[in-house]
Amino acid sequence: MGSLHEFENKSVSPIKPLDSEEFRRQGHLIIDFIADYYKNAEKYPVRSQVEPGYLRKRLPESAPYNPEPIEAILRDVEQHIVPGITHWQSPNYFAYFPSSGSTAAFLGEMLSTGFNVVGFNWISSPAATELENIVMDWIGEMLNLPKSFLFSGNGGGVIQGTTCEAILCTLTAARDQILRKIGRENIGKLVVYGSDQTHCALQKAAHIAGIDPKNFRAIMTSKSSSFCLSAEALQETIKSDIEDGLIPLFLCATIGTTGIAAVDPLQPLCEVSKRYGIRVHIDAAYAGSACICPEFRHFLDGIENADSFSFNAHKWFFTNLDCCCLWVKNPSALNQSLSTNPEYLRNKASDTKKVVDYKDWQITLSRRFRALKLWLVLRSYGVGNLMNFLRSHVKMAKHFEELVRSDKRFEVVAPRNFSMVCFKVSASSTLFKHENDDNEKQKKSNEETETLLEKINASGKACMSHAIVGGMYVIRFAVGASLTEEKHVVGAWKVVQQNLNAILSSNPM
Amino acid sequence: MGSLHEFENKSVSPIKPLDSEEFRRQGHLIIDFIADYYKNAEKYPVRSQVEPGYLRKRLPESAPYNPEPIEAILRDVEQHIVPGITHWQSPNYFAYFPSSGSTAAFLGEMLSTGFNVVGFNWISSPAATELENIVMDWIGEMLNLPKSFLFSGNGGGVIQGTTCEAILCTLTAARDQILRKIGRENIGKLVVYGSDQTHCALQKAAHIAGIDPKNFRAIMTSKSSSFCLSAEALQETIKSDIEDGLIPLFLCATIGTTGIAAVDPLQPLCEVSKRYGIRVHIDAAYAGSACICPEFRHFLDGIENADSFSFNAHKWFFTNLDCCCLWVKNPSALNQSLSTNPEYLRNKASDTKKVVDYKDWQITLSRRFRALKLWLVLRSYGVGNLMNFLRSHVKMAKHFEELVRSDKRFEVVAPRNFSMVCFKVSASSTLFKHENDDNEKQKKSNEETETLLEKINASGKACMSHAIVGGMYVIRFAVGASLTEEKHVVGAWKVVQQNLNAILSSNPM
Repeated sequence: MGSLHEFENKSVSPIKPLDSEEFRRQGHLIIDFIADYYKNAEKYPVRSQVEPGYLRKRLPESAPYNPEPIEAILRDVEQHIVPGITHWQSPNYFAYFPSSGSTAAFLGEMLSTGFNVVGFNWISSPAATELENIVMDWIGEMLNLPKSFLFSGNGGGVIQGTTCEAILCTLTAARDQILRKIGRENIGKLVVYGSDQTHCALQKAAHIAGIDPKNFRAIMTSKSSSFCLSAEALQETIKSDIEDGLIPLFLCATIGTTGIAAVDPLQPLCEVSKRYGIRVHIDAAYAGSACICPEFRHFLDGIENADSFSFNAHKWFFTNLDCCCLWVKNPSALNQSLSTNPEYLRNKASDTKKVVDYKDWQITLSRRFRALKLWLVLRSYGVGNLMNFLRSHVKMAKHFEELVRSDKRFEVVAPRNFSMVCFKVSASSTLFKHENDDNEKQKKSNEETETLLEKINASGKACMSHAIVGGMYVIRFAVGASLTEEKHVVGAWKVVQQNLNAILSSNPM
Repeated sequence: MGSLHEFENKSVSPIKPLDSEEFRRQGHLIIDFIADYYKNAEKYPVRSQVEPGYLRKRLPESAPYNPEPIEAILRDVEQHIVPGITHWQSPNYFAYFPSSGSTAAFLGEMLSTGFNVVGFNWISSPAATELENIVMDWIGEMLNLPKSFLFSGNGGGVIQGTTCEAILCTLTAARDQILRKIGRENIGKLVVYGSDQTHCALQKAAHIAGIDPKNFRAIMTSKSSSFCLSAEALQETIKSDIEDGLIPLFLCATIGTTGIAAVDPLQPLCEVSKRYGIRVHIDAAYAGSACICPEFRHFLDGIENADSFSFNAHKWFFTNLDCCCLWVKNPSALNQSLSTNPEYLRNKASDTKKVVDYKDWQITLSRRFRALKLWLVLRSYGVGNLMNFLRSHVKMAKHFEELVRSDKRFEVVAPRNFSMVCFKVSASSTLFKHENDDNEKQKKSNEETETLLEKINASGKACMSHAIVGGMYVIRFAVGASLTEEKHVVGAWKVVQQNLNAILSSNPM
């Protein structure tokens, strides 16, 4: 490649980068390519089976000097990229949390990519801002959020990329609100609270925002309280911090934790927080969407005393990555921390203060027109279907749970609140009857579960992931991929059983 | 909408959110829709002409309960969204910096959206990580970056969303490197440096990272030094800060400032910074791509002494939003600040430490497969065409500059380094011959330039933006939209002249 500049005077055939007829031709090719991918999604091994470094061996050492036709590129995608993909859109994908794409969201993303506007403020593309205002109010109402979180109630919603950004923004705003009162020199005294089940995004956000890492509290949870954060434990921790001269700042409560989809009790947690002037963010990244169904809405009871709430439409709301919906009660606190007003962005509309400039609601200046994909999802499916999609996943998870319970070699390790089942090889199973010690049984059953999971994923027939909670190694089976049907869940259960059988027959315990 | 839950038992026609044949049908519709949009891009008023609040009046108050057909949605996009868009893809768009989309990048984004993988670590989709490693090395070599910035030289590149994130990440890493040495309690002493021309992203990143706002230095530049940051001024500021007991931390130097595309002199700035142990980030958001052309590469001379470098492929590199390419010399410093290792993400590949886990290179955990679009851009056009695209924009800007210089009523206010011309109604023009005072002439010419810009943008025939540098209100004319041809530049100049003529004839000075 050092020799690339040698070619600088070589003639190349002129190309227009945005010729509409070539766009049309190539666009149709890709649509068919992706449609075929979905049609065949089931056929690929779900977890990629490549070895580290596989791709360098297959691709050239430097960028081509001359253009290559789209047909050749697509062949390479098929031959070299697809094998390196873990197929999150496969109907047999049950790992982590779902990345539930949909046709509607895909189309919305295409429109957004096509218009390619940089909607940092209102004037840079009024529709991008206004559609976001509108769909965030729509979804806020679908979730029955308190009016104070909506634009119509002087709060407001914004689409962030991910929960990590949502937390960093709300935490920074909370930090500045308190530092304005107590003085910046006290930044080293601020304390951030979560549980040992809270997503690592909280700790990372606190770190980035300059909170002293030793002032980050991951309060212990336990199996007896279903791994939820207890208000009593929070209060005790706060008291102890105050006694030590520290200043409680921020709590992140979770609806649907990453490990086992536990639900922190908002009502008492918000009450305790309020008492100590702590700002509360509710992270419902995975499970928030389910709360559009009346039967799940009770999990948000108590939200009226929180300061902000977010969920990832790109997880379990049929909206392709990335799309995190964040609502705040106090946009001006966010804006005070995050606004910038360089001359080159000044304009009459912003000067009137009558428009929303979303650059002041987020970390970045440039922002994509993400509202389009949410709008297309809401309109293409309608609220009725969206509730039905979510319910069908919950129903499938329930069925899987029954299947697990019907096999005495397994146990379900925590209550199933949504569409995720956490299970393991049971420590009390007869498989471990030769162990006398309970700890030893748990250890063996953990090892067995880990081996089982690796075998399942290596088979390529289904993909699941794991967590360790309360000393238990558990398999997380999250239903939510858009192509998943009942038969895939039943099939996945067979894969689990077959692999345990294979382990037992090759190495009887 | 409060009544939405009334409908919960209404039956809705079942829909599959990712049916491949429906995906195909609707996908083809949208491709034609967007191809037609590009074909007609020229016909729309460039800057949107809607009034604040226009969209709420046109859309329903709540999300629909029942699905709506894509044909109806597309009609609404045409009727209600397109009028609210400022057409960054229009050939007559010259505002801010370009958002130069391309067919190749669009296709790459479609593939990425279609696969919809969440590539936080290697195992979650090895191809996403490995292709990013590869294309970042490719582009690094195209830019002739020092080997120390490439994976092949123990540095490495990562695709961030925007420069704001790139700066926040590198600044956080620098902060932690120094705090580990001097103790966290000294966070209030850290100082961040830029010039009064540095993008506001630096100040915002410093603020988020907990740097005391009073320790942010926007060092003055002046017309005499073409609005570049001088190494002498930097050194004096640093010395004065050290005398005050403060600790210099971080410098952001810019290649192609937002205001007038000034180029800070890297060599002396890096030397001064090195002397004081300051980390240097180079923000080449707009102009970095041009440095793939040998005739522009000299602007990066001195980069070997910097710590990190970024440019936005979504600005002037034919890659749809968002795509910021960041290279760092010391990935482990970045990883030390940004890594998280929750059990639920543990896996054998990461445990070997032989793979890159990009979650540890950025703020967010979830990340899209952005490398696909860069890969498609590089392959579909080839390095030769990419250089030619950039040169054709520079050539058009040169032509525009000549046109401005040929009309004595205007002046070009700063050297044109790339594809942007900054001009204004000349204070020394005979238009202001009745003013005796030079300041008064400048003031009048500023007002006239502002009025002119507003008239141009209100006409819808071309879109430009502004900056204020050294007390001068200037119009920024940035060539770079992918559809722009010579005729559009000539046409835009006519729009400028016609509007000045109209101002003069209605209100002779």
